[in-house]
This record gives sequence, C-alpha cells and structure tokens, in this order.
Amino acid sequence: MRNEYETAVLSRILPNDAEREESHQMGKKLIDAVFEVAGVPAMMTGSVARGTWVKGDKDIDIFMLFSPELSREELQEKGLAAAYAVVEKFGGTSEEKYAEHPYLNAVIEGYDVDLVPCYHVSSTAEMKCAVDRTPFHTRYLIDKIASLREDVLLLKQFCKGGGVYGSDHMTGGFSGYLCELLILHYGGFTQFMEAASKFRYGEVIDIEGYYPDRKSVRALFTEPLIVIDPTDKSRNVAAALTPTRFSEFIELARDYCEKPGSCYFIPDAPTSISKSEFSAVLERRKTALFALSFKTPEYVADTVVPQLRKTMETIRAMLIKEEFQVHRAEVFMGPEHSILIFELLVAELPNIIVREGPPVWNHPNADKFVAKYLHQEEFAGPWISEDRYYTEVPRKYITAVSLLEDRKKIFSGALGKHVRLSMEGGYDVLVGEDIWSEEFAFSLSAYFARSSHAVRKMRQLCDE
Amino acid sequence: MRNEYETAVLSRILPNDAEREESHQMGKKLIDAVFEVAGVPAMMTGSVARGTWVKGDKDIDIFMLFSPELSREELQEKGLAAAYAVVEKFGGTSEEKYAEHPYLNAVIEGYDVDLVPCYHVSSTAEMKCAVDRTPFHTRYLIDKIASLREDVLLLKQFCKGGGVYGSDHMTGGFSGYLCELLILHYGGFTQFMEAASKFRYGEVIDIEGYYPDRKSVRALFTEPLIVIDPTDKSRNVAAALTPTRFSEFIELARDYCEKPGSCYFIPDAPTSISKSEFSAVLERRKTALFALSFKTPEYVADTVVPQLRKTMETIRAMLIKEEFQVHRAEVFMGPEHSILIFELLVAELPNIIVREGPPVWNHPNADKFVAKYLHQEEFAGPWISEDRYYTEVPRKYITAVSLLEDRKKIFSGALGKHVRLSMEGGYDVLVGEDIWSEEFAFSLSAYFARSSHAVRKMRQLCDE
Repeated sequence: MRNEYETAVLSRILPNDAEREESHQMGKKLIDAVFEVAGVPAMMTGSVARGTWVKGDKDIDIFMLFSPELSREELQEKGLAAAYAVVEKFGGTSEEKYAEHPYLNAVIEGYDVDLVPCYHVSSTAEMKCAVDRTPFHTRYLIDKIASLREDVLLLKQFCKGGGVYGSDHMTGGFSGYLCELLILHYGGFTQFMEAASKFRYGEVIDIEGYYPDRKSVRALFTEPLIVIDPTDKSRNVAAALTPTRFSEFIELARDYCEKPGSCYFIPDAPTSISKSEFSAVLERRKTALFALSFKTPEYVADTVVPQLRKTMETIRAMLIKEEFQVHRAEVFMGPEHSILIFELLVAELPNIIVREGPPVWNHPNADKFVAKYLHQEEFAGPWISEDRYYTEVPRKYITAVSLLEDRKKIFSGALGKHVRLSMEGGYDVLVGEDIWSEEFAFSLSAYFARSSHAVRKMRQLCDE
Repeated sequence: MRNEYETAVLSRILPNDAEREESHQMGKKLIDAVFEVAGVPAMMTGSVARGTWVKGDKDIDIFMLFSPELSREELQEKGLAAAYAVVEKFGGTSEEKYAEHPYLNAVIEGYDVDLVPCYHVSSTAEMKCAVDRTPFHTRYLIDKIASLREDVLLLKQFCKGGGVYGSDHMTGGFSGYLCELLILHYGGFTQFMEAASKFRYGEVIDIEGYYPDRKSVRALFTEPLIVIDPTDKSRNVAAALTPTRFSEFIELARDYCEKPGSCYFIPDAPTSISKSEFSAVLERRKTALFALSFKTPEYVADTVVPQLRKTMETIRAMLIKEEFQVHRAEVFMGPEHSILIFELLVAELPNIIVREGPPVWNHPNADKFVAKYLHQEEFAGPWISEDRYYTEVPRKYITAVSLLEDRKKIFSGALGKHVRLSMEGGYDVLVGEDIWSEEFAFSLSAYFARSSHAVRKMRQLCDE
C-alpha cells in the first residue's frame, strides 16, 4: 500500500512508456553500432537497462564485451577506439575518464552515455578486472526486479531526498545496485523501510544464501551493512556505505515510518550565508576559526575529497599535539579553491609547555635529556613522575596561526598526494571573517547549520 | 671502601659510644618501668634498638607485649593506662596518637618515645594486629645488621639528602626497615648503590628465598620494588614506595655512582618566593593559575595529604571534562590553610561546546535527544557521526572560575572526607598573584622550580 506521499512522488519520477521505449531504442542503436565498428557484442547495463531509473536521469551504460584473450593493453586500445568510433558515428561529444581503465563518457542525442570496454567472461570467477562484474549485475536483476520497479524508484528518491544516494567517496551512500538488492530482498519499499528503521551495526543480507550464518559473514566483513553480492560472494555491495550514512539512513527510515511526508523525497535546498551573517555567527560562537586555502587539484571529487580529509586529519592531529583544542574541522572542495577549516577553542596558548622525556632506566637517553635541560632554569624541570622524565620548556607554537603557517611542519605530515602538490604551490592561512568568500557561501552555511538530514526533515515537517 | 664524602658524612652522623650507651640505658629503664607498672614484658624496637639510628634522632620505640588472650578493647585500655603510668613515672609529657589502635607519643628526658601496646605472639602467623609485626623486625635484624651499621646510616642519610626517606604518604619513600634490609641483602652501601642504579620496575628481593622465582613474586605484588619481608612472606616492605620515588632513587644512585659528592647527603635547603617574584613568574609563564584555599583539616599530614590529592584529581578531571586544559596541578598543606593549585592553559573558553548524544539505534534516547535540541537553532546539530548523535550547545562554564566557584558541582565529586568537611565550611577561589601568601612562600617556590632531586644535586655540583 502506497501512502499519499509515495503515490505523489511516483507520479513525478516514474518514466512513462514512451520514455522507456525511447531509452531502449537508444540502447539498441548503440549496441548495434558497437558490433558494427568493432565486431564485438555489447550490452546495456545500469538502471536504464533494468527499467529502474528515475525520470529525467538520461544515463545509458554500454559495456563492450571483448575477448578475454586480449591483453589489458589491447583491451584498452581496441575499447577506446571502438568507443570513439561509436561517438563519431552519432556525431556526439566525448571525454575520456578513468575507472580501473579508461572509458569514454559521451553525450549522444541528449543522453549521457558511458562506453566501457570489458572482458566477455562467462562467470565472475573468471573476471579479469572489476568492471567485468557489472554486466552480471544486470543479468541477475533484470527479470527479478521487473515487478518491483516502483519500489526501487521510491527508495532511490528517498535516498536522494536524504542526501545518502551515491557510492562516491564524497557521499559514501547507497548505490543504485544496492537499492535494487535491498528492495529485492525485502520485497518492497515499505517492508524495507520498516526493517531498516531497526537496523544495527553489522546487519547481514545474503540473498543467495552463500554463507551458513551471519557469524561467518561478519568474520569476513566489518562494514556496518553487509550485502553479499549475488554475483560474487566475496564482495559486500554496501562496502562504500560509511557508518555515518548508514546511521543517518536508519534515522531517516525511523522518522519516515513514524510520520511520513513529501519532504523526505526532496533534497534539501542549499542555503548560503553572507559575509556579514558569517561575521555575526563567529561573534556569537567566540571560537577561533582558521582555514587553509589553496587551488583545487585538477582531479575528480572522488579523488580529491578523500585527500582533503586525510590532510585535514593530519593537521588536526598536529594542532592537538601542540595543545590547540579543535572544536570541529571540515573540508570543502570548490571549483577554484579547496579549504580546510579548523575551528579552535582558542587561538593562543601560554609561553610554556610540558615535554615528556625518556623513562628513567633508559640511561643513555635519560642522560641526554637531563643534560639538555639541566641549565634551562627559566621554567621548571626536569622532574620525574612515575617512571619518566618531564620538563617545562618554552612553547614552540604560541599561536595557532604560527603552526598553520609553518610550511616545514605542515609538509612533514601525511598529506594527500595531489593536495600536497597544490599546497606546495602555495596556500593561504585565513583567519575569522576573511575565510568567507562567494565560492564557499553555501558550504560555510552548511557548516554552521550542520545537522542530520532527518533533523532537517523534522524541522520542515514542523514548519508545514 | 668509603670515598671521602662517605667518610666525612659518617663522622657527622655516626653516634658515638657514649650516645649509644645512653640510649640503651634509657631503653632499659623504660622496659623496666613497663614491667613495674603493668607486669608485662616490653622490648625496644626500631633503629635505636638495632644501633642504626642517625646521630641526633633521639627516637625510642617501646613495644609493650600483652597477652594475646586480651580482647582488642582490653589491649587498648591496659596499654594506654600502662603508657600513661610510665610517662608519669618519668615526669614526661605525652600525646595520644593513632595507628591501627591508640598509642602514646611522649617526651621523656629529651627523648621522643613511642609507647605502643601490642600482642605478645610467638610468630607472625599468629599476629592479631599490624603492630604485632614490629618486634619481629628487630629480632630478625638485630644481630645480622650489627656489622653493617655504617652502611645503613649512609643509605638513610643518602635517602634524606635526596628527599626520599620516610614511608609516610606525603613522602612515599624508603622506611628505615627497608634501608636495613636492602643493605643486608647487598652487603653494603656501595654494592647496593651500584645495583640500584640499574634497577627497573618490578625489582624483586627475597632475602629468605620464600618464593621459587621472581615470576611467582610478581604474580602477587605489583609495586615497582618488591622486598619480601623476612618476617612475613605475604608482605612487601617497599609497598609504600611510590613509582616516582623509586625512579628518583634510581636517578640519584646512578648520578652518585658516576660522580659522588657531599651534596647527596644534605637535604636541599628550601627556597621561598616573594609576592613580586611570584607575579613576575606568572607574567613569564602566561598560564592561568587558580587555587582553592580552605582551612587545613585537623588531622595528621598522613591523613590529610592523600585526601587533598584525591580532591585535586577529582577537580582536575572536572576541568578537563569541561575542556579546560590543565598544565599542572598540585596540593600544599600549610599549618593554617591547604590549597589546591590548578595551572590552566587558558582561563576562558568560547560560548559553544559539542555534546555527545546516544547511539542512533538507542531509539528512546535518540528520540529524546533529538526532540530536546530540535528547536535549538542558535548553534549546529543534532548531527550524526559514525553511530552516534552530537550537537552543539551553549557552554555551561565559560570561565574556569565559574566552574571552581560552583559549589554544587565541586561537591558532586569524590572528595576526601575531612577535606570535604573543611571545604563545606567555605573555600576561596584565588586567581593569579592573589594565590601568594606568606604561608605558601616556600611551597610556591618549589612548585615553580620543580625538578628531581638528582637534577638539583647536579646543579649544586656544577656550582661547586
């Protein structure tokens, strides 16, 4: 039984027969073209192939199935050549992209088409690279999911509305394939939502029953949600789902089951913050806000964002080690610049710090430590506490800015590769309201208003 | 072979024959008096009995040996009555003190005399209270230690010079009995010092060989130095030695073996700090210094100091929980007032704090948490990170003073019993230079100049 909100959203997102027919015709034409230019079979994969796409998403994935006897180099060469020939045939435009190997992302007759070369293998056991698995997903689901298309669409749109759709690194949410498997397993959107609202860490779904029990699955996988791939028992389809997104989904499902609403199917409209509002918020918080700003590396978000996060964690650890308490930290990747935000409790510390020395019975190091500080009489020490030496010394970084501006210190840490290169080209340390720029007006607004998707939905429901 | 410093110090601290004779005569007179007034035997214990006292220490311990058939109440009653009668007989003055049961501390003919009632048992296995053990120590050592008296005196004086002599709570150092056993085991002062300079945590000394190996000893005792009592195999004579004092002794022994000096046998002269010097030091450190000051409870230091420390640790934990970073903390017990010192990195924090909420799948608590903060829109939250809710809320204690002055908060913690009573009578929160007073001019000087005894000795050696 659909409720009123579900009926309404389906009328918006369910492709009609004409669209369905048109997409299939387009797929068929592309498959024929591949055979024509390269003499190899091809198949349509993804949501369009399975009839589970959300209206308006005009993405077609064509996998070109080459002989497994080709070398990797030959596959890449012949694959790209075939893809370019297909695009040329339709008069489309294209751009090379990289997954495990290069493929072509093209725009053909208004469709966003991926032309991906892979090996034509007869089972996943014979796979030669990760993309070889994709055709099996479609073969597995195409008939089974046919009667559950509406349910899949509802779940996908629910995930989009809650900000948890997409298995890219930035989102860390639910992939389309994962949504379809979950609907298949639970038999419908409503059934799945009720189950999900009671999910806990270590949930196991093994549709094909490859494993005798949950325990043996949990011995192999450690992710919060474990969905065994029906086409490959060694793979967790939900591996990219982060613990945070998993928890957020539970919260959304729970709230939705309790009190559904149309807002759950509509992504939040981003809000922006003006410079004067930004200053006012800083004044109210009384924290010390700093940002490292540098040119965004010219790679896709899926590559850059994890590197920004790694860099942020490294610098956060440096700040904490030097006794600057970090209230919150965040990264934002803009089209021009990327920024690492550090919100500290204080910007400045006293002149003094306690340094830990060696254990007393480590004689050579103990001697060195004592000798070094024996005639430092400005502050206290060295003294012994329990089994170890300590001494007070002048603090190296009195201000957080002096640490953040110390390039040698910053570059001594583990930074993401491309982020490091960009920062080595120069980075600015911005303080307080100078952090604001048009480019980050939306991101900074989200930072200050940080709340879970479900909380935002509940606030919207209250306002309705 | 004694070195020049040892020879010199012995000439200062070794009692001469006349003193020795005089002390023994005094002991004998007291023993006779006990028999006369109470009809029970008595014995002299402690260092005077064993001839191992440092010249000038005129402490005589007399243990009055009552029948084990007496009840504890009878022992106390008869014991104190006998002690008072003895004191009266000699025209001395006295004061009741408490160990496991009451005893009398008297001044008789210039000697500091303890008159302690205990049970006359034939082995430690039959002991009825802890003081019954003491006579066995003297019986065990009196002959064995006779030829090693000078070595014992050197070690005792070395411990005094290094600030590690005394098994009271405030010192947590070496007792006289422990010094004697160590000398007995190693056969001399020099031999012991060389061994001690290589000591590590978990050192085992089992003179009577009660245990088959070190491992079985370490399974029973966890202290850094384990010296099995020859008169009671279930007791570690070094149980009161703190890890810090143990480590400090290792350091002293090591430095002394490398470069001996007379300063190792001379306690450091305490230094004091004037109010203007105190202010200047604060200015240089730029930390935020606070003190809680209250009347010193009317109990002995051995009772009060551990309670002050416990109270300090409780309040330190409160400060840290509220995000005030504690640089150092210390307690000082003065004759009138006691103070708890907290040296913080900063005195004031921003208006905002992150509060941790329940896990997402703890539905009742999650609902409560979200409901509580749903319409708090001044700051961010609630949001989910990993499996848990968090939210920003206004900080309760913006200043450290507001926390320290919050009596309800302070008294909600685990404070020492007598310290709590005193603080409930009223305590002051002192800030910065107002902490200074004549009463703590020496303690505060020691606080700022904190360094290990060996470091101070080395500085003295450099100055010589």
